Amino acid sequence: MDPKVNTKVILASRPTGYPTEEDFLIVESEIPSLKEGELIVKIDWLSLDPYMRGRMNDARSYAPSVEVGDVMVGGAVGTVVESRTPLFSVDEVVEGNFGWQSYALSSGVGLRRVNPLLGPVRSSIGILGMPGLTAYFGLLDVCQPLAGDTVVISAASGAVGQVVGQIAKIMGCTVIGTAGTDEKVRYIVDELGFDVGINYKNENVGNSLDSACPNGIDIYFDNVGGFVTDEVIKRINTGARIAICGQISQYNLREPELGPRNLFHLTKSQAKMQGFLVFAYEAQYDKALNRISKWIKAGKLKYREDIVEGISNAPKTFIGMLQGENLGKTLIKVS
Amino acid sequence: MDPKVNTKVILASRPTGYPTEEDFLIVESEIPSLKEGELIVKIDWLSLDPYMRGRMNDARSYAPSVEVGDVMVGGAVGTVVESRTPLFSVDEVVEGNFGWQSYALSSGVGLRRVNPLLGPVRSSIGILGMPGLTAYFGLLDVCQPLAGDTVVISAASGAVGQVVGQIAKIMGCTVIGTAGTDEKVRYIVDELGFDVGINYKNENVGNSLDSACPNGIDIYFDNVGGFVTDEVIKRINTGARIAICGQISQYNLREPELGPRNLFHLTKSQAKMQGFLVFAYEAQYDKALNRISKWIKAGKLKYREDIVEGISNAPKTFIGMLQGENLGKTLIKVS
Repeated sequence: MDPKVNTKVILASRPTGYPTEEDFLIVESEIPSLKEGELIVKIDWLSLDPYMRGRMNDARSYAPSVEVGDVMVGGAVGTVVESRTPLFSVDEVVEGNFGWQSYALSSGVGLRRVNPLLGPVRSSIGILGMPGLTAYFGLLDVCQPLAGDTVVISAASGAVGQVVGQIAKIMGCTVIGTAGTDEKVRYIVDELGFDVGINYKNENVGNSLDSACPNGIDIYFDNVGGFVTDEVIKRINTGARIAICGQISQYNLREPELGPRNLFHLTKSQAKMQGFLVFAYEAQYDKALNRISKWIKAGKLKYREDIVEGISNAPKTFIGMLQGENLGKTLIKVS
Repeated sequence: MDPKVNTKVILASRPTGYPTEEDFLIVESEIPSLKEGELIVKIDWLSLDPYMRGRMNDARSYAPSVEVGDVMVGGAVGTVVESRTPLFSVDEVVEGNFGWQSYALSSGVGLRRVNPLLGPVRSSIGILGMPGLTAYFGLLDVCQPLAGDTVVISAASGAVGQVVGQIAKIMGCTVIGTAGTDEKVRYIVDELGFDVGINYKNENVGNSLDSACPNGIDIYFDNVGGFVTDEVIKRINTGARIAICGQISQYNLREPELGPRNLFHLTKSQAKMQGFLVFAYEAQYDKALNRISKWIKAGKLKYREDIVEGISNAPKTFIGMLQGENLGKTLIKVS
């Protein structure tokens, strides 16, 4: 593609159920011209994340929907190529909500300068960005792990789950992860050091949890929801802490799913269930990124990326991720 | 009945669905004779509470089940009539888990000396006992109310709900209660000063919440569960706090009920849902009781009791309470 053209992925229609490639449209436009106070970023890497599915709906959530005809939202990292603002200079590497496109116009507000000393630039939208920070605060603040706790993580090989499990190991916990393929289960156990991996697609999750967690479950970090979560909640200990990070099993249903009413488990276990968004912790990002970076450099925190080249492959890759085809953090190499 | 005979209500069979009177058996026995280190309490008042339904099941919960043939569990208050322990003397008034009977043998361990200066003796198993303390800690500690918050309470005219709502008013909150009869709705609004009452049996709860809570819901104190809770959860604000105190709508179902999967509301609202048991706060009971007593004496905290005479009426009264026939705290006047 012409490097001087902005290639954008726009929302063509609102999906019901899983999105299809027809719900997206790839269009080209001119790179916008700058006004005073603006800058242009050439996008290098685009992050694909489950939350984006929610933005394709019309329903009110914590952030506005993407309108049909608008560029899909998404975190990305790139290089400032033109600047008419004192906030950022040409050649600086910045991370922000630039969307699914190859060039982005910005006022500079809300952009984060990427520190190349912490890790590769692309990790600023992965383990050293929103997913890594989500894991860090969701586990450490919401779930307050103590050494010896039994921690269960759903979607354990994903961008967030893989980090949660390893931080829980660093904290001295016993860590059990659920994932949807044997390859993912091998990855979290053999490469990341989780104690047990459960393939929720071909195991009886309840039985597997019973044998993996003979002393019950103290912490549950939930990315998935649905029947996996039901089985975990039946097995929580007194004082359990449950972080509701995501519910990917529910995002692509044509009809809302019903599940067993199980809130009394919270009462009898005096347990806490908390939803959270990473943005609440923005004031603590720098400290967390420094700590994550140190753990990576010390070899205590590994991560895998699932990299696909070309912005035009973003829709297909996103749909695949929603269906569990990725292993680790899904990234589009844009340029 | 012969005052020298111990009249006991024992569990005759485990109910499925609502209990019937046939699930209980009233038997008489001799008052047990004392050994060294024991005392006998003549029960004056017995508390009937929704949690007792759970103890009739075989399922593991936070406390053991009542075995078939055993005396039903329950908090009660009475007078020491014989004592061979230095812990308590004859004529002292004590509160404890004495069960559904007219006399109880005890080692004295776990009994609480009732302070008659705080209020009438029977209130030690009501507003100045477990239900009042449950309301106090569930609202103030779990839900952390701030002046201006919108607070919704289910089973709002019950032993716990009526206290929660009034403490929330003392804290400067807007208070909405749900209840199952127009009489209960009038009671919480006209007598207790709740801002709005909703009859969940003959109103569209969602529509009524929409008009009662134009700014959304900050706190939900749940005694009920089921569809009322579903409607509340749809309307929670960012940072909402939900205390799961009880789920009485679910205790008498023959088949477990399914409900909509709605945990993502917690994520998007960064909300906390917490189950709790009052026993966790035992170290703070005295301070709380003093405060509750002061509020009562200042006229800021009213309460209603639903008093039935005679231990043999306990089964019928208990079944009626589970079906919502009580208004306020249900008590049996034993002697």
